[in-house]
Amino acid sequence: MLITPHGIIHTPAFMPVGTLGSVKSLTSEDLETIGTEVILANTYHLYLRPGHLLIKKFGGLHKFIHWKGPFLTDSGGYQIYSLAKKREIREEGVVFRSHIDGSSHFLTPEKVIEIQNCFGSDIIMCLDECPPYPIDYSYAEKSLRLTTNWAGQSKLAHKNLNQSLFGIAQGSVYPDLRRRAAASLIEIGFDGYAIGGLSVGEPKEKTWEAIEICNEIFPEDRPRYAMGIGLPEDILEAVIRGADMFDCVVPTRHARTGTLFTSFGKLTIKKAQYTEDEHPIDETCNCYVCKHYSRAYLRHLFISQELLAYRLNSYHNVYYYLNFMKQIRQAILKGHLAEFRKKFYEVQKS
Amino acid sequence: MLITPHGIIHTPAFMPVGTLGSVKSLTSEDLETIGTEVILANTYHLYLRPGHLLIKKFGGLHKFIHWKGPFLTDSGGYQIYSLAKKREIREEGVVFRSHIDGSSHFLTPEKVIEIQNCFGSDIIMCLDECPPYPIDYSYAEKSLRLTTNWAGQSKLAHKNLNQSLFGIAQGSVYPDLRRRAAASLIEIGFDGYAIGGLSVGEPKEKTWEAIEICNEIFPEDRPRYAMGIGLPEDILEAVIRGADMFDCVVPTRHARTGTLFTSFGKLTIKKAQYTEDEHPIDETCNCYVCKHYSRAYLRHLFISQELLAYRLNSYHNVYYYLNFMKQIRQAILKGHLAEFRKKFYEVQKS
Repeated sequence: MLITPHGIIHTPAFMPVGTLGSVKSLTSEDLETIGTEVILANTYHLYLRPGHLLIKKFGGLHKFIHWKGPFLTDSGGYQIYSLAKKREIREEGVVFRSHIDGSSHFLTPEKVIEIQNCFGSDIIMCLDECPPYPIDYSYAEKSLRLTTNWAGQSKLAHKNLNQSLFGIAQGSVYPDLRRRAAASLIEIGFDGYAIGGLSVGEPKEKTWEAIEICNEIFPEDRPRYAMGIGLPEDILEAVIRGADMFDCVVPTRHARTGTLFTSFGKLTIKKAQYTEDEHPIDETCNCYVCKHYSRAYLRHLFISQELLAYRLNSYHNVYYYLNFMKQIRQAILKGHLAEFRKKFYEVQKS
Repeated sequence: MLITPHGIIHTPAFMPVGTLGSVKSLTSEDLETIGTEVILANTYHLYLRPGHLLIKKFGGLHKFIHWKGPFLTDSGGYQIYSLAKKREIREEGVVFRSHIDGSSHFLTPEKVIEIQNCFGSDIIMCLDECPPYPIDYSYAEKSLRLTTNWAGQSKLAHKNLNQSLFGIAQGSVYPDLRRRAAASLIEIGFDGYAIGGLSVGEPKEKTWEAIEICNEIFPEDRPRYAMGIGLPEDILEAVIRGADMFDCVVPTRHARTGTLFTSFGKLTIKKAQYTEDEHPIDETCNCYVCKHYSRAYLRHLFISQELLAYRLNSYHNVYYYLNFMKQIRQAILKGHLAEFRKKFYEVQKS
């Protein structure tokens, strides 16, 4: 459990992603009804548009986007790696061009703290360099040194005690670098610890290895956040390896392409087999969508490209994720996690 | 006031348009909260996809789309005119090709009644031919004769007394044809009377003239529906000329292009002047959107092409329309309609 100025977060927790200040197609009331305890917003995106100073002027992100619960903002490191153009990494920070208008920007660890301070986020992240995959050991080491230096500078720049600051461990697929990363972060001392550079193309066993190594070192009484994880099965594997915070665009992105999560695996709503299907997406799901709509109607909306399709699909998928986390938490409390995992895979296969 | 099997409709009434079985981006609960008493769905679209037999199998449109209130379905005449390809008008009905897949279809007045019977609509419309504008007198007369014949056949085919059947008066911009159309419909006898072929390119004064002529003839104790009208000011003008039912895609379509209706006229949310604007869309509006969101945030969502922008904009615009109708009804009850109209134009100009 995590206590923030805007509410309690039960862990393991999933954070729906509101990249630009909205969890796509959903309102805050929807998210509350679904049981969302924390959402994530992207520093890179909100810094570029509408800008951190505008958000500050509005009294912070909570007020700007009308969300009362806790917020985590990332550091922008991943987006600078995946979206920004002509990026140049220097000792002092990152120079890059906006993917929106090509304008030039320079972000330092201190600047990123300041930006997130303007947002008023409950949880803020240190600027890091997210190296691509594959990358050779010497680059990974050099990059990690930079990320660790930046973590130290971020800690020094962090003055607002209403905000929890998390450090990010990088180190690519190299166990000793991951160990060094985790140990350095502990030495600096953070409110929570994150594992970055995951799901960038590395084999799954390397993802699990990185999470295991870091979580062996990270203190157990601090939240441990596996960034960008992932599919339900990936979250489950990461929880087993000690991670307790997650974010991923999958539930909303899959919703927009018509892939729905169910207790029996994924369902592709556009399939012809659902044309006359009077059942809800998932008989066992208690969400608003499953209570009121048939697969046939949802298929009709989706193939007709109706906006309501994306909204109802997103609602269901986010509900699925939050309910899945609830089930994981219950399984942990009852000491049944291994059994839960076994059942999960059995049902997915059937 | 109109009493239907699914509820009461206070007139003058505006019907939000749910072309394909959803009022774009809004749920039935949204529409209920906003105060929607009736929605319109398009026979042409729903006949082509998902098909009237599928909808019948689901127990009708109400159950299929999860809407408890009254429904009006149009006859498809206007869509065959505006959307269908290779249409050929015969004495017996219309042959056309689907705008979706090019498949060939033949709709007769009887078939259109049968389709709407499968939908279970509360109010159904007779098949008509909607002639283009401009059109010469002889074609308009020939077309009208056909529409009137079809109205007679529709009446004969109408057996389900849970459904109110409305006739449609055509006649283009020719006063004597409009008079003849209205008189013929009364002779046949309908539960309500509609004025079709409006807003197809004719000058505004011709629109008002057609409405005036028909409403002079239509009985006062029956609902009189001015089809496809329109902007708030057009609805007001039509109400003054005796019309009491309206439908238009404008509130939702304008929402998707960022044009918002307010008590002081239209507002284009993408304008730079709203970048830092902390005010709601309309200070005097009591809708959910105006209670919780600033113009700056709505502008941010809109220029970022976030799905939530279309949803919130649609919610506000539909609320505006329904509230506008409520104000018109109150003005009528108080005998203040002329004053209401004067004030409306004063405020729009300021």
